[in-house]
Amino acid sequence: MSDVLELIFSRRSVRKYLDKTVSREILTDLLQAGMAAPSACNNQPWEFVAVDDPAVMQELRSNLSHGPYNAPAAIAVLYNDKIGNNPRCNSFWEQDLSAAVENILIAAAGFGLGSVWLGTHPKVDTILKVQRILKIPQQVVPLAILYVGYPETMPEPNTKYNPARVHWNQY
Amino acid sequence: MSDVLELIFSRRSVRKYLDKTVSREILTDLLQAGMAAPSACNNQPWEFVAVDDPAVMQELRSNLSHGPYNAPAAIAVLYNDKIGNNPRCNSFWEQDLSAAVENILIAAAGFGLGSVWLGTHPKVDTILKVQRILKIPQQVVPLAILYVGYPETMPEPNTKYNPARVHWNQY
Repeated sequence: MSDVLELIFSRRSVRKYLDKTVSREILTDLLQAGMAAPSACNNQPWEFVAVDDPAVMQELRSNLSHGPYNAPAAIAVLYNDKIGNNPRCNSFWEQDLSAAVENILIAAAGFGLGSVWLGTHPKVDTILKVQRILKIPQQVVPLAILYVGYPETMPEPNTKYNPARVHWNQY
Repeated sequence: MSDVLELIFSRRSVRKYLDKTVSREILTDLLQAGMAAPSACNNQPWEFVAVDDPAVMQELRSNLSHGPYNAPAAIAVLYNDKIGNNPRCNSFWEQDLSAAVENILIAAAGFGLGSVWLGTHPKVDTILKVQRILKIPQQVVPLAILYVGYPETMPEPNTKYNPARVHWNQY
């Protein structure tokens, strides 16, 4: 198996973390990975809130029913329809931001960090909670929150490859 | 710069390809990377059409105004609302499939392949063309087509990091 597949297969959801902080240098590396994602028409309609304040992490943990995990840090990935280079391509925003998310998760795996993707959009109640906790304006939409940290144990690399989902040359 | 950032930064859009086929073994590796993506509730609501028939590639090239490029192969990434493990999480399908797309593009970069992401959903006219060419049923939605091939020249690695897009702990 090639190195790149090994890396991609090593990105697994982690829900138990060591009590060890993630440096701002590493969080910034993860943000660099995110912003290296492709976007439709090079629109880049994304913003990020990086969280490493224990009190804010505790707020997320106690308010998000799908995010009680003890990660020391998080990155919220946000859509702002006013900041893109090419607003005519805004309808691809969910794809653009999801590519940025996946880049961050793969970079985290490459750094030996665990991560878990907490879905936010299109669940309105979750969007409102995240906006309130991170003081995000109403018109800026959190797509997802990514918890990151050093894993208590790293799950085994895995692909969920299913040949029945592959068609060749026509469906 | 770490290896993983170098890899992620090396994923650039390529629009000129060598006249050299991509093996089914490598295309299958790319599909393995795609299906290793995370999905909400592990739903995995994706299917793929891998294209390596020159006649089908020519059909795509001549019908898609944003895809005239001479790639020898392509992967269409499709949403089928009937095949997921957890249809209650179908509303996250666009994010799930975009993560699979980004995994494929990063794996391609790792193999020394170029790629370009051709947006399809939510452009109805493009969806209909892709469904017709690849004989995709009406209820199965192509999110995107990814062209892949050996690049004529590989663009320089790049991040589009913009510190103005980062907020710490609150927006």
